[in-house]
Amino acid sequence: MRIDRTRLEESMQALGRIGATAKGGLNRVALTDDDRRGRDLLVGWMREAGLTVTVDQMGNIFGQRAGEDGLPPVMIGSHADSVPTGGKYDGQLGVLCALETIRTLNDEKIRTRYPVAMAIFTNEEGARFQPAMIGSGVMAGKIPLEDAYNARDRDGVRLGDELERIGYLGSEPCIPRPLRAYLELHIEQGPILEEEHLPVGVVEGIVAIAWSRVTLTGVQDHAGPTPMRIRHDALVAAADIVRGVREIAKDIGGDMVSTVGRLDVSPNIPNAIPGRVSLSIDLRAPDERHITRGLDLVDRVVRDAARAEGVTYELEHYWRVPRTRFDLEVVETVEAAVQSLGCGYRRILSGAGHDAQYMAAICPTGMIFVPSRDGRSHCEEEFTPMDDIEHGANTLLLAAARLAGTP
Amino acid sequence: MRIDRTRLEESMQALGRIGATAKGGLNRVALTDDDRRGRDLLVGWMREAGLTVTVDQMGNIFGQRAGEDGLPPVMIGSHADSVPTGGKYDGQLGVLCALETIRTLNDEKIRTRYPVAMAIFTNEEGARFQPAMIGSGVMAGKIPLEDAYNARDRDGVRLGDELERIGYLGSEPCIPRPLRAYLELHIEQGPILEEEHLPVGVVEGIVAIAWSRVTLTGVQDHAGPTPMRIRHDALVAAADIVRGVREIAKDIGGDMVSTVGRLDVSPNIPNAIPGRVSLSIDLRAPDERHITRGLDLVDRVVRDAARAEGVTYELEHYWRVPRTRFDLEVVETVEAAVQSLGCGYRRILSGAGHDAQYMAAICPTGMIFVPSRDGRSHCEEEFTPMDDIEHGANTLLLAAARLAGTP
Repeated sequence: MRIDRTRLEESMQALGRIGATAKGGLNRVALTDDDRRGRDLLVGWMREAGLTVTVDQMGNIFGQRAGEDGLPPVMIGSHADSVPTGGKYDGQLGVLCALETIRTLNDEKIRTRYPVAMAIFTNEEGARFQPAMIGSGVMAGKIPLEDAYNARDRDGVRLGDELERIGYLGSEPCIPRPLRAYLELHIEQGPILEEEHLPVGVVEGIVAIAWSRVTLTGVQDHAGPTPMRIRHDALVAAADIVRGVREIAKDIGGDMVSTVGRLDVSPNIPNAIPGRVSLSIDLRAPDERHITRGLDLVDRVVRDAARAEGVTYELEHYWRVPRTRFDLEVVETVEAAVQSLGCGYRRILSGAGHDAQYMAAICPTGMIFVPSRDGRSHCEEEFTPMDDIEHGANTLLLAAARLAGTP
Repeated sequence: MRIDRTRLEESMQALGRIGATAKGGLNRVALTDDDRRGRDLLVGWMREAGLTVTVDQMGNIFGQRAGEDGLPPVMIGSHADSVPTGGKYDGQLGVLCALETIRTLNDEKIRTRYPVAMAIFTNEEGARFQPAMIGSGVMAGKIPLEDAYNARDRDGVRLGDELERIGYLGSEPCIPRPLRAYLELHIEQGPILEEEHLPVGVVEGIVAIAWSRVTLTGVQDHAGPTPMRIRHDALVAAADIVRGVREIAKDIGGDMVSTVGRLDVSPNIPNAIPGRVSLSIDLRAPDERHITRGLDLVDRVVRDAARAEGVTYELEHYWRVPRTRFDLEVVETVEAAVQSLGCGYRRILSGAGHDAQYMAAICPTGMIFVPSRDGRSHCEEEFTPMDDIEHGANTLLLAAARLAGTP
């Protein structure tokens, strides 16, 4: 039993046209009109594949293929939203490989003991609404539904209102429910599989992640007649923080990474000394203790930078997820599947957060990685060769079928 | 002969309501609807004062009070646009003190040999369209009209189109024309007059100014699975430039100032390594040679920062105005006027660019400063005590009348 590579590729192209950028990337940010168009296309395909489609209170979409009555499903899926200048593989690929799994089971007229359900989670990226992975986070009971509804984008628009606007505010309760397993195929978004010429990664878990935000308040003033001696420039303090955050990962080592990805200046004109700067800090490490040490260093870096420039600050460590260890049975099932295909693989740790991280809290969970060219993701250059995708998709198919079992 | 303080204050309040911010500042950016409303109010007042109002091709507004036929006018004025979160004094005060001068000459039935003309220049701030002082720059023949029309704001909107939209695309040629003198009252925007408890500054000239812009291109990637060793983070390089630019003024000394006021990150989300950052650099110094040295240091700072992070860059030194020395006769006329009022004053150099800078290229020019509380400007806290404003306005009145002479 193998997936239909041509059909998968055609679906990738069709979905990739919705929100396509001129440079071959994808801009389909959560709960925009393009997100709605992408969802509509997917839901149509799910219905054509005979799935029973439901939408929950967070706009998460599920499509179930029948198994024996009363048994919890094996859920496979990912997310369909992208970052603003993202690629056509992150998220979308996992959703389409899940659909291809369903279609192949249909073609082969396979009956499974446990139902197989496909999932599309809302706002995984966190590009528009923070925190990331909010759809699976609410489902796992880790984020209160009301908090999620009240998340606002830069323009102050509420997530709950946008869900309703695009027609994906469903009625199904968004709560933990019995699942046989959750399995997600995703691009690696790092360089390891490509460097080692391996088409598949059997993911053992996800690094610990912590997100912080800083707002610096200096004294906004004219850039001309204000002598250097009386300046309190929020951007100078922010620059020291960006440099300091870069050093944190280097100082701690052990595969830790640290990033300032977002930085907003006010009033942001050439001839005014910046009065306010807000910025994000992202820390990740396989070792939970490194995060704890990193957050201490963030405290120190921010305090020192603000003090040196005479500006005030607010620092909030607002999101932290511990190291995720995937379920041994699921990991071994994935490994057996890829072995049966006879292709190269390695066990690997994910450096990115995924919906699988939250799902691991409510059911046996695993992931399958396929390589990212040059390790690049969250950019228009994101690419995975179709040969690798085929191996990954077949791994998902075989592992899901094995987990679902025969009647 | 003295101005009417109450009338001036009432006009300040009326104009200050158009674009007022909740915190007592002003947001009346060039060629917005509020700019149009402010212009309409001023033009109405100018007509009520008996002035012949004309609008030139750059939307600069002039209102002339008759003198002897064929003689060039003494022009007094400033600008009516503000920065986005600016104050109610920068620009607006000079325009209203010019109007108050005209009104007082009318009240006193003063006839002058040279006409007295009031001027309101377009887009002095450069907050929306760059470069700053674009209306007077075109008038002085320093900026081609077509370049000015083609200046675009962040949303890609053309200056020329906005001029037309708000109804201030005039037909009067925007070219140098014979002027007896140009005189502008403005807030100091620095701390000196306040520190020395002086109500009036007799401005001898304006520091040299240079504007540069930098665009850094790194490798946009996912902030999680991308190891530190393969990162090329445009924001880390930008942070080094912000810090480096701060040091330039300190290294060179001699009242030089250096500022990064604007910085834009792309894609600007917490979990992507910034792939592109653009930023502005503003250098100012009384000594022209310090600017030249400063720009060399900018070249080095940008090159070193880009090299250290392995990112590419474009650096453009796109605007430079030399040190402006005001006309000796005008400066001495202002000094004589303030002396005749019997109030304290000092000669001073402007750290900010003003329309007077361009006007100095086409006619004898001078400026009058009034203090800024805490030296602050380009912020909502901008404030000048009414007592100081009264002294400044009377200095403008007496100096303008003296320059215009008696028939």
